[in-house]
Amino acid sequence: MKCDVYAKNCPSRMILDRISNKWSMLILNRLHEETVRFNQLRREIDGISQKVLSQTLKNLERDGLIRREAFPTVPVTVEYSITELGRTLSDTVHVLTHWAEEHFDTVVQSQQAYDARS
Amino acid sequence: MKCDVYAKNCPSRMILDRISNKWSMLILNRLHEETVRFNQLRREIDGISQKVLSQTLKNLERDGLIRREAFPTVPVTVEYSITELGRTLSDTVHVLTHWAEEHFDTVVQSQQAYDARS
Repeated sequence: MKCDVYAKNCPSRMILDRISNKWSMLILNRLHEETVRFNQLRREIDGISQKVLSQTLKNLERDGLIRREAFPTVPVTVEYSITELGRTLSDTVHVLTHWAEEHFDTVVQSQQAYDARS
Repeated sequence: MKCDVYAKNCPSRMILDRISNKWSMLILNRLHEETVRFNQLRREIDGISQKVLSQTLKNLERDGLIRREAFPTVPVTVEYSITELGRTLSDTVHVLTHWAEEHFDTVVQSQQAYDARS
């Protein structure tokens, strides 16, 4: 099947939609580095709610991008790690996330110049 | 200034939020290839409304990622092209968009396996 991300009903568009989301990106980027527990993700990804974190992790697990492991401690410990498929994506997500950190000053300058012209 | 995309008030987080959007990605990806007219973008990016396209283009222009040029034809012709700054990002967006096209079958298989287990 020829796949075209510009076509609204192509499965690749649905996948682009899933990954084009700051929470998915931040989670993939964090798990790109190491295995992380649920509570640690919640603390480190500033501003994410427990509900959104749970749902985003569930979606990424369903997509085969991350793996969930639960350990029978009290309370239960839940760890997330990147899968092999996820790593083929997180390499790129990592570059994109770094781009935002590297270029934010240029973008902010451009916004100020644009607003001054308007 | 030390920038941290995990911090909710860091400017880089706002920028990640802007670019983590399927419409921004599809526009950047299309302009990565060539200069394109407004109406052509509207036709090619299946499912985008005129309003969302206009707003997304305006945001990307304000961020300094794309350039807008209007020509005094009747009716006015408006063309969009990628800027030098935009190209440093669109290289990566291009990889991400291709990832979705290349891996959609693996993702769909993974979703089906997940749903069968649930």
